[in-house]
Amino acid sequence: MTERIDALICPRWTIQVEPSCEVKTGLSLAIDEGRIIDLLPRAEAESKYAPNAVHERPAHVLLPGFVNAHTHAAMTLLRGIADDMALERWLNDHIWPTEMRLVTPDFVADGTALAVAEMLRGGTTCFSDMYFFPDTVADVAANAGMRTVVGMIVLDFPTPWADNPAEYISKGLELFDAYKGHPLVSLTFAPHAPYSVADETLKRVRKLADELEVPIHMHVHETASEVADAVAQTGQRPLARLDELGLVTPALIAVHATQLLDDEVQQLAVAGAHVAHCPRSNLKLASGTCRTADLVAAGVNVALGTDGAASNNRLDLWSEMSFAALLGKNHVGNAEALPASTMLRMATINGARAIGLDQQIGSLEAGKSADAICVRLDAPEVTPVLDPLSQLVYSAGREHVTDAWVAGRHVLADGALTKIDEALVLERANDWAQRVMES
Amino acid sequence: MTERIDALICPRWTIQVEPSCEVKTGLSLAIDEGRIIDLLPRAEAESKYAPNAVHERPAHVLLPGFVNAHTHAAMTLLRGIADDMALERWLNDHIWPTEMRLVTPDFVADGTALAVAEMLRGGTTCFSDMYFFPDTVADVAANAGMRTVVGMIVLDFPTPWADNPAEYISKGLELFDAYKGHPLVSLTFAPHAPYSVADETLKRVRKLADELEVPIHMHVHETASEVADAVAQTGQRPLARLDELGLVTPALIAVHATQLLDDEVQQLAVAGAHVAHCPRSNLKLASGTCRTADLVAAGVNVALGTDGAASNNRLDLWSEMSFAALLGKNHVGNAEALPASTMLRMATINGARAIGLDQQIGSLEAGKSADAICVRLDAPEVTPVLDPLSQLVYSAGREHVTDAWVAGRHVLADGALTKIDEALVLERANDWAQRVMES
Repeated sequence: MTERIDALICPRWTIQVEPSCEVKTGLSLAIDEGRIIDLLPRAEAESKYAPNAVHERPAHVLLPGFVNAHTHAAMTLLRGIADDMALERWLNDHIWPTEMRLVTPDFVADGTALAVAEMLRGGTTCFSDMYFFPDTVADVAANAGMRTVVGMIVLDFPTPWADNPAEYISKGLELFDAYKGHPLVSLTFAPHAPYSVADETLKRVRKLADELEVPIHMHVHETASEVADAVAQTGQRPLARLDELGLVTPALIAVHATQLLDDEVQQLAVAGAHVAHCPRSNLKLASGTCRTADLVAAGVNVALGTDGAASNNRLDLWSEMSFAALLGKNHVGNAEALPASTMLRMATINGARAIGLDQQIGSLEAGKSADAICVRLDAPEVTPVLDPLSQLVYSAGREHVTDAWVAGRHVLADGALTKIDEALVLERANDWAQRVMES
Repeated sequence: MTERIDALICPRWTIQVEPSCEVKTGLSLAIDEGRIIDLLPRAEAESKYAPNAVHERPAHVLLPGFVNAHTHAAMTLLRGIADDMALERWLNDHIWPTEMRLVTPDFVADGTALAVAEMLRGGTTCFSDMYFFPDTVADVAANAGMRTVVGMIVLDFPTPWADNPAEYISKGLELFDAYKGHPLVSLTFAPHAPYSVADETLKRVRKLADELEVPIHMHVHETASEVADAVAQTGQRPLARLDELGLVTPALIAVHATQLLDDEVQQLAVAGAHVAHCPRSNLKLASGTCRTADLVAAGVNVALGTDGAASNNRLDLWSEMSFAALLGKNHVGNAEALPASTMLRMATINGARAIGLDQQIGSLEAGKSADAICVRLDAPEVTPVLDPLSQLVYSAGREHVTDAWVAGRHVLADGALTKIDEALVLERANDWAQRVMES
């Protein structure tokens, strides 16, 4: 007697990530009601289950969907607005003024839709966002079938989203209540950065984050000048200040962290804090180099993020994975550092762990949500396949992703987005480009 | 009276590279008998020319094809054979032993065909190769309609191609004679590296290169240990030795050059030598960081190469361009360094200049060979288009290349290779993978 289930995915190779990145051949993934219920040899799967849909992927690797641990999704609409300049000038002279003029819920909706289309096509099934109008981000992503972690953002200065810290926080708490228990949306507190949020506000954020049991997602030590300014003004490095305020805990997702002393690497490790490493953005803004291999060696959980498209200029975890691997090896002068399996973990389970969802996503294990992708390895760029894991990390790209499932829903099917009107998304993005260029 | 011509390409945007990287709108490129004969506004083109073919590319950028200034094409068959290890171990324990066992003209033919398929699909229209059986490389590439510069390789030790320096050189000279005047094939001398070729041989190579007027394509200062070993053994850095031997001239293409003192940057600039920068390979092998921005500032012509697929693991100039830009900015701590236009030049005209073909390719100018590509900018990953040049360098990838022409021949047409049996190429590569894994 076979058991009726929603779907069976039958790839050539499977990489579960947890319990290991071992490449297995000939397994099938059984999905029912949004969850992974089994992973077993194909012949056994066929005698045990009666699937409503069978997805044959004979030249493909099946693996967990990627987790983008740091982005500002709606900023896709500002892709290419200001390149080849350092962070302070980029932010103060270009990004913030443009945002003040243009950012509305419509801007965020259309920019997020574009980002979701880009990310799902590239195999990212979950993103941790930090932007204005997070309610809109959550709605757009959830409607497109994508998993998202939205930030309850907090800043000391007024923006189109709120006027003062109290308003940011109260709007954040409304958001928390609105999405409590949502199957695809969860939350972080997202105080922007040490230099843009005052002590009192950070204390309140920390207290609330404890109560609500949400992570704190924050830019930390992105540039040398930001650290130097803090030292000049207060005598203290930002991470030391955050520690005094009680923020350096397992709840902290320290984004960027390009400026870390040996003690600070240890401090993050001992505290159990997470790092969201965004190599392309850091390099492009010449912000510095994250000590990825040292952090991993110290036991810090390092996840990968794309940052926003205005500083990257792509939301592509494949590119981040190869940049993180190659840059990280050369930075410590050791080609054995950060091997392929470590990098694939960074792009999947480590991201899930940073955002507190490692019991639900980040690996292909029975009981977890069915957030998975298929990647074809039969194109010239990924031929021959001597080692599927090597091929994923060093040769493949977003263009080889064929399918994505989020909570069992087939949101990218053989290259086509199933829940997004791609033509409409592009048309609206192009309309915004006119306004950006005229503004 | 209109003039009959072979083809007219009508893109939305055109970037000529020379005389500048300015983005122009609404131009058409007129091609006849393999050459660019005109670049002019579309309305004028229609009244002036009667083209046999009109290629409408309304969402595309037209630009010169990319030049891969350093690769070992046939090594695609070893893609993924040995990752996550330093150059010496990778080369001595894995690559060279495997090559000694397997490399034959058939291996080189099938590996080169795969490489050509990968490169053309990604917009590379010319590659400078260094490998065994260069006669086979030239034949395969030319038959596929791709432009190539093959190396007359020289080594001190025996390989499947030749037994001793004299035989390498005589086989090289036969190759030179065989391909003299070939429209798609030209030659370099390719002594492998300072550590693998003796003084007497290098002197002879230099003399012959002068007589034949060909560049000298050589690995130079790839790793710190190679430089340290030379200093320990001879008291001299390899570049100083090459200079004494008369090799540091405008004919030299110094590949990698990750280890350069200030004086050596100046030395290369004064000599008019070229650097073939291969950032992905250098980072992956943890070999060091080329001083790209310093070289450019000193006036050295810096081109881009992929190196072989066994150390990269892709033959993708788009990835090299973004690695070179982002790594280079961060290395000098200046986000304004190496702007997008500089990077596009590295991938095109600078490569052409290094291999001595800058009068024929590398830019879209009347009189040059019609070696051009189209890149679509209407996919989610490259939307919206605030700046087409930024989009090419920082957002686009090989997957956005739709068309390639080499000497006017449409070798990639709307994503499909026209002169290569892709299925057969993949089948043969997969057969070799079996032999590689069994060996």
